[in-house]
Amino acid sequence: MNIRKALITAANPQQRQLPLQILIGSQGEPKSALQLLLEEAAGAGIEEFCVVVCPGDEPAYAEACGPLRTRVRFAEQREPRGYGHAVLSGREFCGDTPFLHLVGDHIPVATGPVSCARQLIDIAVAQNTPVSAVQPTRENLLTSFGAVGGKLVGGDLPLYQVEAVLEKPTPTVAEQELLVPGLRAGFFLCFFGMHVLDADIFSLLDQQLAAAPGRRLSLSPALHALAARRRYLAFAVAGQRYDIGAPYGLLFAQFALALAGRDRDPVLTQLVELLAQRPR
Amino acid sequence: MNIRKALITAANPQQRQLPLQILIGSQGEPKSALQLLLEEAAGAGIEEFCVVVCPGDEPAYAEACGPLRTRVRFAEQREPRGYGHAVLSGREFCGDTPFLHLVGDHIPVATGPVSCARQLIDIAVAQNTPVSAVQPTRENLLTSFGAVGGKLVGGDLPLYQVEAVLEKPTPTVAEQELLVPGLRAGFFLCFFGMHVLDADIFSLLDQQLAAAPGRRLSLSPALHALAARRRYLAFAVAGQRYDIGAPYGLLFAQFALALAGRDRDPVLTQLVELLAQRPR
Repeated sequence: MNIRKALITAANPQQRQLPLQILIGSQGEPKSALQLLLEEAAGAGIEEFCVVVCPGDEPAYAEACGPLRTRVRFAEQREPRGYGHAVLSGREFCGDTPFLHLVGDHIPVATGPVSCARQLIDIAVAQNTPVSAVQPTRENLLTSFGAVGGKLVGGDLPLYQVEAVLEKPTPTVAEQELLVPGLRAGFFLCFFGMHVLDADIFSLLDQQLAAAPGRRLSLSPALHALAARRRYLAFAVAGQRYDIGAPYGLLFAQFALALAGRDRDPVLTQLVELLAQRPR
Repeated sequence: MNIRKALITAANPQQRQLPLQILIGSQGEPKSALQLLLEEAAGAGIEEFCVVVCPGDEPAYAEACGPLRTRVRFAEQREPRGYGHAVLSGREFCGDTPFLHLVGDHIPVATGPVSCARQLIDIAVAQNTPVSAVQPTRENLLTSFGAVGGKLVGGDLPLYQVEAVLEKPTPTVAEQELLVPGLRAGFFLCFFGMHVLDADIFSLLDQQLAAAPGRRLSLSPALHALAARRRYLAFAVAGQRYDIGAPYGLLFAQFALALAGRDRDPVLTQLVELLAQRPR
């Protein structure tokens, strides 16, 4: 398995501004969220990028790409028919090769020196099979994410064979269907917004589109079907993902980037000063 | 003195995006920096607003005004001839009445329930004279602000009669010319980006423009001349100003707004979780 392509979805009409927001990267440079994602992928060996956007958004997004602009092409999602449909809009770009898929509104920040995308691609290559990055996530946040159930197969690694995928389950449903032995009580494996997939996902999305042509197409049911069809893994990468569309999401993404980067000390110093200035 | 007009400058060509950045206000609502400033002023009794912008920026700024849009007019600064020149662009709007002046890239956050603009206007009305809001600021930040020297005249209040105003002085110059008895060592009174002024400032700016017609016009020399001409005060408001153009300025402005608002507890909780996830 050789992973050289990345598909980034950024076509949610309610969130089209998010990938264009400016953050300060770990080296102190202002960058758009989109540029951070492109660089995350490029650092893990990706050479070609496709960004799925709303019709008309290409110029603003092209400007936000930074130096990787020349390696990025755009695909329009013509109608807002859901996240799965946006992924399907990248079919032509991806072709038959396995690819890295990132969502445009999640910023990954690795715990150590190896980026989240690199960790995930290394696992996918070693296992030669689709893998989704996941993060143990408190049950009160289940309403924001897709979640997986399965069993630990990685020995020392936090690697799971996926048995079920549900989109934004309630805690009650998650407890019945997505329990993962070994996780802390009240935690579930939620998506990180980062996957290594291959052409199988497009045929599964096609089937689901054909089965319910009028409905919005989600990605989770296709991943659920993928798990039933073949070996599909989930890997808890060493890092956190920050959903910049969540309340205060940009704030905490920025904080995490700063604490992982060059400016950790001055930012912590300013934080402590600010906290001292703002007693209850 | 009756203060019903506010002049907001947002015409620095390098910083034209700043007032359009989205922050989450103290009640949890997303708002542009410009909308936060308009609301700060409206909450202190301002009824009419003028925003000085770069040519062509009016549409984007108008969209960022929020519900106060109908009370805002725009003045273009035709050429980028400095901050003082931008203030002068608001002369027609302000006329002969005293007015509140805010800079478009500083977010004020009060320490208590009374907004910074309200504190400043109350002092200006009580003293019936121009007053600039100031903040005791560490000398390493002098390179970012105008600073004043003077003597305490407020008794119990942190109110100063201004004797000198310098734009971005070096610490050495500040120590010679801007020492303020009673301030902590290494601190100087720097501008807060908020002033109550009147038509005198326009005639002083006019004089300075005439004296050096080719040069960029700053505001500080005109305020220095104002201090020589009449009683002009500085008031250390209870609050902080966050320069969103500074590195990590948006981050800390957002933090301060969150800690002063409805979402203080969940934001502090998330902050502690994030710090725990990000040991060195």
